[in-house]
Amino acid sequence: MKQTYISEIGKHEGQKVTIRGWLYNKRSSGKLHFLQVRDGTGIVQCVVFKGDVSEEVFGRSDAATQESSVVVQGVVRADKRSAIGFEVGVTDLKIVQAAQEYPIAKKDHGVGFLMDHRHLWLRSSRQHAILRVRSEIVKACRDYYDERGFTLVDAPIFTPTACEGTTTLFETDYFGEKAYLTQSGQLYMEAAAMAFGKVYCFGPTFRAEKSKTRRHLTEFWMIEPEVAFYDLNDDMDLAEDFVAYVVARVLANRRPELLVLERDVAKLEQVQKPFPRISYDEALAILKEHGVDVPWGEDFGGDEETMLANHFDRPVLVHRYPARCKAFYMKGDPEDALKALCVDMLAPEGYGEIIGGGQREDDLETLERKIEEHGLPKEAFEWYLDVRRYGSVPHAGFGLGIERTVAWICGLKHVRETIPFPRMLERLRP
Amino acid sequence: MKQTYISEIGKHEGQKVTIRGWLYNKRSSGKLHFLQVRDGTGIVQCVVFKGDVSEEVFGRSDAATQESSVVVQGVVRADKRSAIGFEVGVTDLKIVQAAQEYPIAKKDHGVGFLMDHRHLWLRSSRQHAILRVRSEIVKACRDYYDERGFTLVDAPIFTPTACEGTTTLFETDYFGEKAYLTQSGQLYMEAAAMAFGKVYCFGPTFRAEKSKTRRHLTEFWMIEPEVAFYDLNDDMDLAEDFVAYVVARVLANRRPELLVLERDVAKLEQVQKPFPRISYDEALAILKEHGVDVPWGEDFGGDEETMLANHFDRPVLVHRYPARCKAFYMKGDPEDALKALCVDMLAPEGYGEIIGGGQREDDLETLERKIEEHGLPKEAFEWYLDVRRYGSVPHAGFGLGIERTVAWICGLKHVRETIPFPRMLERLRP
Repeated sequence: MKQTYISEIGKHEGQKVTIRGWLYNKRSSGKLHFLQVRDGTGIVQCVVFKGDVSEEVFGRSDAATQESSVVVQGVVRADKRSAIGFEVGVTDLKIVQAAQEYPIAKKDHGVGFLMDHRHLWLRSSRQHAILRVRSEIVKACRDYYDERGFTLVDAPIFTPTACEGTTTLFETDYFGEKAYLTQSGQLYMEAAAMAFGKVYCFGPTFRAEKSKTRRHLTEFWMIEPEVAFYDLNDDMDLAEDFVAYVVARVLANRRPELLVLERDVAKLEQVQKPFPRISYDEALAILKEHGVDVPWGEDFGGDEETMLANHFDRPVLVHRYPARCKAFYMKGDPEDALKALCVDMLAPEGYGEIIGGGQREDDLETLERKIEEHGLPKEAFEWYLDVRRYGSVPHAGFGLGIERTVAWICGLKHVRETIPFPRMLERLRP
Repeated sequence: MKQTYISEIGKHEGQKVTIRGWLYNKRSSGKLHFLQVRDGTGIVQCVVFKGDVSEEVFGRSDAATQESSVVVQGVVRADKRSAIGFEVGVTDLKIVQAAQEYPIAKKDHGVGFLMDHRHLWLRSSRQHAILRVRSEIVKACRDYYDERGFTLVDAPIFTPTACEGTTTLFETDYFGEKAYLTQSGQLYMEAAAMAFGKVYCFGPTFRAEKSKTRRHLTEFWMIEPEVAFYDLNDDMDLAEDFVAYVVARVLANRRPELLVLERDVAKLEQVQKPFPRISYDEALAILKEHGVDVPWGEDFGGDEETMLANHFDRPVLVHRYPARCKAFYMKGDPEDALKALCVDMLAPEGYGEIIGGGQREDDLETLERKIEEHGLPKEAFEWYLDVRRYGSVPHAGFGLGIERTVAWICGLKHVRETIPFPRMLERLRP
């Protein structure tokens, strides 16, 4: 008999269906077994009444262990107490495989234990909900650009040179030569924007971060749009519109999951355009109000970002940082040579940076000088300089980190739960 | 003045517009300059008539070099000879940056030269068209699964163990421990399918292939669906329906690009369900008809695949290969222990394998025995064996290689043009 997915069960009221899944939970009371069966699309209560089934089926229901795989036949009936509005009156139950004693029991486990069992932990309601939200965020990100005439241009993972500093690079032997895992697709997107006008890449990026913080993974996904003829203001408009869109999509399509996560959705509903835009100098003033004195020219750390992010009820765009905090490819502010035409977006509720970007240096000689000043090997950047030799134009873009965005939207304390199989300083398994 | 993209120009007939882009080509005849301007969304002819513009603008048009960046103002008018149906009567032209002599001139360049200038080569009509088709294929792949209740579950890139053999692994130092770049997300998808029912991953995968063939890249993208409670037949149904969908989407949305590539679209229009399904044994018989004798038990090489693929007018599914050709996780055929419940899909016109997959071994003891027989370290697979300990179910899936699919759909000889920045044995740059 054809499998009915639990998400579709409401269409079969009064009908006999076959559900295939796993026993998530069970309670019994005399002549009744209440089996919570999950199939990946939802959880439904399957009621086994002794009078309705053979002795064998009732016995099997009694013996069934947590996470055993099962095939349940029964009739769908409305049930007001159910979260999904329906339950199943069981007529038959088969055990596909009787699970051994499930390691993730109801008692509290430490995070290390759960992470070691990540392949099983994914089955829990909470992890399931987080990764469904992640899936929706990824789709929303792609749809946003696909629907606006951007071309997806995948950036390479193997790169011959570093782009964001050399201290956090993963290295591999590439047939006798050194190759590094990409930290950002940006330089490639700049070249691609000159071919396609509006482009984005979306893939894993790597940083050999030795820090154990709640915001760092060694392997994380980033979406990086880049647009020819955009300036910093256009870039901020795009970032703002994009993030508002992604939040709205999650609110529209993943409310049940946010409910499981006990997320305060009112806070997400506030994420409406326009977002506040403040300069680095204004950010310094806000920090000072909060009693924190950052000397001009210093970058913000996690604590300062948290403080700034807490100051607003929606994401804030902080622009024009001191040039010396930022990478060589940032365009200088024509109003003040010490500043860069860059922007970070900090998520509210203390989440901090989710976007970093800005306008890129488009003048050949300036860029050559900056490469030299940063002590970078010019020959490795000749191809990148070509973008300024052959039809250079103003252009801008940014990168949004998926895991930090998932953490913020789901309201999680740590990024480790935002990705199916996290990789961190002390975590390469499973 | 707001930029009008060339793809939208038909909406502005009779109006004055501003186009920002690059000079793709030019011809002149006395009082007229015909500038082919591209902006990433299309190419439009901009006509500069001496009588319509200042001497300065006419002079600039005369001096403008290939790939210089330009801002053109002018009036959109219908033009029957134009591929896009419109041209622009120029009223003003500004040069943003005058390009140096463009390295990719009209003369024939060798592939090595073009690949060294990949960042510029992307601007050519042909490469542009290929990557627009790629972008469409990627979107079609994701939409297919997203619209059918699959959850995207990103597989990790860093893995502690090999899954497809140890000879083609890229290795990196992971804080003092060895880590390998993933060759497939499959094992992770199997665990995820037990949590979400229907899942897929889509990301870059890596093989340190020392072979220089037209089908191999060291870094390539793969989409890998995996479904709980699917058997080999369900898997073949899914693969067939999926590939037919992707081809139909490209035909629906990327005809102009296929035209640029001079693709015989009639061949793609034949890609309709049902696809032929033959067993390995039947494939042997077909090869024999063609005069090629493959001893039973041997895998097919590129030549045999090409021959089989040429035998049909649409993709062919070849199932039940000898178990000894296939990986340890393949489920044995209950009808014949020497065979595996696996399937490859070979693309027509000689393109060969684009899909590999099958039903997975779901019995704990059998899988433990196979891991031992293959000489694999059991402790590394304990987490994977957990999938058989806690609610094991029949399940199946496959991986589709994006670059080979792009090569086939675009009708390309070599996969190196199917990805923006290809990585091969002797190619790590730009």
